[in-house]
Amino acid sequence: MTRKGINAERQLVNLLWKHNFAAIRVPASGAGSKVFPKPDIIAGNGINYFAFEVKTSTLDKIYLEHNEIQDLISFSEKFGCTPFIAIRFLHNSREWRFFDISTLQKTLSGNYKIDFNADFTNGLDFDSLLGK
Amino acid sequence: MTRKGINAERQLVNLLWKHNFAAIRVPASGAGSKVFPKPDIIAGNGINYFAFEVKTSTLDKIYLEHNEIQDLISFSEKFGCTPFIAIRFLHNSREWRFFDISTLQKTLSGNYKIDFNADFTNGLDFDSLLGK
Repeated sequence: MTRKGINAERQLVNLLWKHNFAAIRVPASGAGSKVFPKPDIIAGNGINYFAFEVKTSTLDKIYLEHNEIQDLISFSEKFGCTPFIAIRFLHNSREWRFFDISTLQKTLSGNYKIDFNADFTNGLDFDSLLGK
Repeated sequence: MTRKGINAERQLVNLLWKHNFAAIRVPASGAGSKVFPKPDIIAGNGINYFAFEVKTSTLDKIYLEHNEIQDLISFSEKFGCTPFIAIRFLHNSREWRFFDISTLQKTLSGNYKIDFNADFTNGLDFDSLLGK
């Protein structure tokens, strides 16, 4: 994980706490960390529970591997929470968007892609994620 | 955190996954980790959500600081989960016991204590935690 990626995760955790969610960043590193699936961030407010896979890019496209999406889904089904891909394009917007997995474009190789120009505004903004 | 402490946390995470919970160990280390309260382990199965503070000892008594109990309570209230102190006395028993905070003995200094001889069997065993 790059420093920019870590900073983005921390910024999202801060934003969630500010909006009355308890949120935790789950570091990916450490021995045994590949044994069970885990999201980048988990959050709850007693009503809604979310698991986030966080991706940022300085370019126009963000790619997600089939396996990380499957891990996010299987974790979320078992835990009892709603999975989202949390995206920020660093060069172009400081705004988060949140994608339901069913809305993601599949690439020819079976992975997933979010294109800034084609897809970004299809994601939920932060207020919509919170049901506001 | 000692290696024994980390191993105990991993062992509890494994046990929870074996019993159909999604569970995550939340490392305490890392910059910014003191900003928001966080438990040692968080777990859910779509019905029950738990936050655990994990303590082990090779001696007969386990002490918990007032602040770590307060952090566990405030995290759990906000997230929407039930807080438990997960205890293992390494010398004497390989068995986990789970303590509701209201059942803990307070020390004269305002902290908390679990005594192997006086208190251990007052904790829930793993099956009872799971409502079995």
